[in-house]
Amino acid sequence: MNVKAILAAKGGDIYSIEPNATLAAAAKLLSTHRIGAVVILGAGGRLAGILSERDIVRAVSEFGADALTIPVGQVMTRNVMTCVEDDSIADIMERMTAGKFRHLPVLLDGKMIGVVSIGDVVKERVGEIEHDAEALREYIQTA
Amino acid sequence: MNVKAILAAKGGDIYSIEPNATLAAAAKLLSTHRIGAVVILGAGGRLAGILSERDIVRAVSEFGADALTIPVGQVMTRNVMTCVEDDSIADIMERMTAGKFRHLPVLLDGKMIGVVSIGDVVKERVGEIEHDAEALREYIQTA
Repeated sequence: MNVKAILAAKGGDIYSIEPNATLAAAAKLLSTHRIGAVVILGAGGRLAGILSERDIVRAVSEFGADALTIPVGQVMTRNVMTCVEDDSIADIMERMTAGKFRHLPVLLDGKMIGVVSIGDVVKERVGEIEHDAEALREYIQTA
Repeated sequence: MNVKAILAAKGGDIYSIEPNATLAAAAKLLSTHRIGAVVILGAGGRLAGILSERDIVRAVSEFGADALTIPVGQVMTRNVMTCVEDDSIADIMERMTAGKFRHLPVLLDGKMIGVVSIGDVVKERVGEIEHDAEALREYIQTA
């Protein structure tokens, strides 16, 4: 199983926002779509960063009400890890756990085609392992 | 594997806040301890509710800067699902996925002794399934 299978199952909806939008606008976008993170696109649609619920809570914790007028570009994570469709689920699960991030944009020829979350990854991975175990059980019973 | 094993692995740290604390104070608590939710204790230490990062982002989205002065008790989820130490990991994983919540307080004789997150559950569950599959593989190789 790979990233392509996850995108096929969940669809490739991408929610993005501009770097000069406020954290208030980003909070509205996350709430409206019930998502945990949004990607920030800069000039030419280039991936500039990613912003999560945790980033918003941290800014509010640090700056209080002033946080809501801060541009997303000042708070976002700039060094965004990405993956490609051929990456295995086990591989990206390990990278997300090691790097402690929950969302991973998927690139194809440099263009973003989707975002996978730790929830998506885990759902697929558990299904995959259970399937393996079931296949082994059947093999034993019929051997 | 059950809830008791998760608590043994992660420790039983409980972060709580009072219902009349503000959302600003709750955001500070979540950020300081790098946690995703906090339980709200009412009179006599009774579990009154739970508040997550998502609840804070939703309040900010709806009320703007005014959200930060709102008492936690007005925004928290009051109908908190709980579990006990003997509950199996598969069982609480299913309940959390079906109910779409990420944190589950653990009760012992009516007293809260810890909180398990979907991350904790998944980590244990994946380890458990991988262990089963490995045991089956060994059985086949030595059969």
